[in-house]
Amino acid sequence: MSTKTGIDINFELVCPTPLPAKDTILLGHGSGGKLSAELIRDIFLPAFQNPVLARLDDQAIVNVNGQRLAITTDSFVVKPLFFPGGDIGSLAVHGTVNDLAMGGATPLFLSAAFIIEEGFSMDDLRRVVSSLRQAAADAGVQVITGDTKVVEKGKGDGLFINTTGIGLVPEGVELSADRAQPGDKVLLSGSIGDHGIAILAQREGLEFETQIQSDSAALHTLVGEMLGAASNGTRNVTPAIRCMRDPTRGGVSSTLNEIAERSRVGIELEESSLPIHEQVRGACELLGLDPLYVANEGKLIAIVAPDAADAVLQAMRRHPLGLDAQLIGTVKRENPGLVTMRTPLGTTRIVDMLAGDQLPRIC
Amino acid sequence: MSTKTGIDINFELVCPTPLPAKDTILLGHGSGGKLSAELIRDIFLPAFQNPVLARLDDQAIVNVNGQRLAITTDSFVVKPLFFPGGDIGSLAVHGTVNDLAMGGATPLFLSAAFIIEEGFSMDDLRRVVSSLRQAAADAGVQVITGDTKVVEKGKGDGLFINTTGIGLVPEGVELSADRAQPGDKVLLSGSIGDHGIAILAQREGLEFETQIQSDSAALHTLVGEMLGAASNGTRNVTPAIRCMRDPTRGGVSSTLNEIAERSRVGIELEESSLPIHEQVRGACELLGLDPLYVANEGKLIAIVAPDAADAVLQAMRRHPLGLDAQLIGTVKRENPGLVTMRTPLGTTRIVDMLAGDQLPRIC
Repeated sequence: MSTKTGIDINFELVCPTPLPAKDTILLGHGSGGKLSAELIRDIFLPAFQNPVLARLDDQAIVNVNGQRLAITTDSFVVKPLFFPGGDIGSLAVHGTVNDLAMGGATPLFLSAAFIIEEGFSMDDLRRVVSSLRQAAADAGVQVITGDTKVVEKGKGDGLFINTTGIGLVPEGVELSADRAQPGDKVLLSGSIGDHGIAILAQREGLEFETQIQSDSAALHTLVGEMLGAASNGTRNVTPAIRCMRDPTRGGVSSTLNEIAERSRVGIELEESSLPIHEQVRGACELLGLDPLYVANEGKLIAIVAPDAADAVLQAMRRHPLGLDAQLIGTVKRENPGLVTMRTPLGTTRIVDMLAGDQLPRIC
Repeated sequence: MSTKTGIDINFELVCPTPLPAKDTILLGHGSGGKLSAELIRDIFLPAFQNPVLARLDDQAIVNVNGQRLAITTDSFVVKPLFFPGGDIGSLAVHGTVNDLAMGGATPLFLSAAFIIEEGFSMDDLRRVVSSLRQAAADAGVQVITGDTKVVEKGKGDGLFINTTGIGLVPEGVELSADRAQPGDKVLLSGSIGDHGIAILAQREGLEFETQIQSDSAALHTLVGEMLGAASNGTRNVTPAIRCMRDPTRGGVSSTLNEIAERSRVGIELEESSLPIHEQVRGACELLGLDPLYVANEGKLIAIVAPDAADAVLQAMRRHPLGLDAQLIGTVKRENPGLVTMRTPLGTTRIVDMLAGDQLPRIC
């Protein structure tokens, strides 16, 4: 339908599930979409008022005697534990390393805390630990401390892992979701929806002609190349790259909505420029999912000043994890707080945050 | 029975439960006793070989551009969530702050990650978050980053919380479980077993004449006083205080066994000097528990050089959390790796690590 703003609104996307009673926790509170944002706004932010947390970026950045430390935490409850392209162990490294990298930090250290259900297979635990170890070694981070708790059978679900990461932010790097400016370009490092659909396919026993692999990967070396291209030999990256985010829970749509809201700008996407693998597109059509809301674990979105966008895009395409990088949209002064998308037919629709819960426990 | 070493061995303590099959995770793997140590030795240490983790102290200490950072992680799965003297929120602050403090670090920052079961009461979540906030404010630490995941009903148990803490270790402080030396004194900051018995009483609906309160508390200001007394105005604390530990899971016995093993020394306790509240002693007798194996959340053990022990003990007794501090034993050259206890009857028994599982989910 058409509204007074002249924008076509797809109500199915805006409200895929009815909004629920407010007195208990719902799966959607963990989805990374609207309910998650409400939970943070209504319960966590008022309790822990401080300027570091209030930035609401993927990582906190604090100053310890002149060193700028980036700190981030993530619990992983992915189901199943093993999936094409990874498992909970490698995911627990990639997810946390990426949250550090999105702040421009060099990842240094990880903690790893395991909550294990009684009766869990020791072989599976070994397999997960080995995968976590390999992913950490590949990413060049050290696992320096850990914890193990065991809960009774039926009081957990196999294995949950928390990793907390610590990194160092180089001088001159200041990335934050409130820095997007009209005219900036929106870059995406590759195809969307691979992780969420790989998990869903594995969980639901769906078979496709070719197996869909999770894109789970550590993005910090890609980020390093991008920062290098943006600084162009100077130490000041910030004017060129405004913000980076990895579109995990809630997908590209939720990430861009957060940036639009925090920066009070509009973001206009070009649908035809969104890279999506054919099988992922097919699976989404089959399942009635919108790939813009499906989680990724090895992709990033960067908001880049217009005069640096091409250099950064070329640097991305020279990196193995950015071969399919695309310019997917532009930051606008119009419609502040809104993400819109121009379709190949020339119409425009609002791309809202995920409401309710599309794919639980994908990370 | 008597052995050739002339020491009475209490076999019930050494082996309270039969040692189990090795192919699945048991509750005892989370107990902080023998099975936990095996799990760390067989699975986690070989995977993450590095000198920082290999210290096996309650916190990792790393050098970042000249700053000595202490980092520690803990997941909290305590059941019930609310208990006399605290709840999972305050416990999640105290436990992690204490692990930092045991390394002599000044606690600075916490991350907080919540794994919530679908259907959990929003009011209970608010109550826990408020308690976590208050405990962090009281301890002077900032909660700077967080995460929320939701799992389906029946796949969790209400609420699990991970906190990871970051602190700064002052110059001259080097505390580690491998530094105990023959002749050193063993100091304990107060009564033992309060936390574990408070949890158990609440969980099992036991009633005592007076309610047993958890001792859950943040110990870093007590540690500060102890370090001050030990350094006696100089910057070098280390020669005087060798090591500090908070005897949580596995209790005083498991903590002292770890120190005895890591330092290759014997530790001899004096049973009559162990401070135990009358109700806790009574509850332990009733339930067939040994208070040496029951968890504490607001107590610490310090191994201190003999010439500094009295000054440190007096400093402890001047602090509200150390009023009942006692000298409970001595480090010996004999019986390296063993903890022994002299009973009021003049006999000596071995105090082994907790085997199996005495009290699951007390933290």
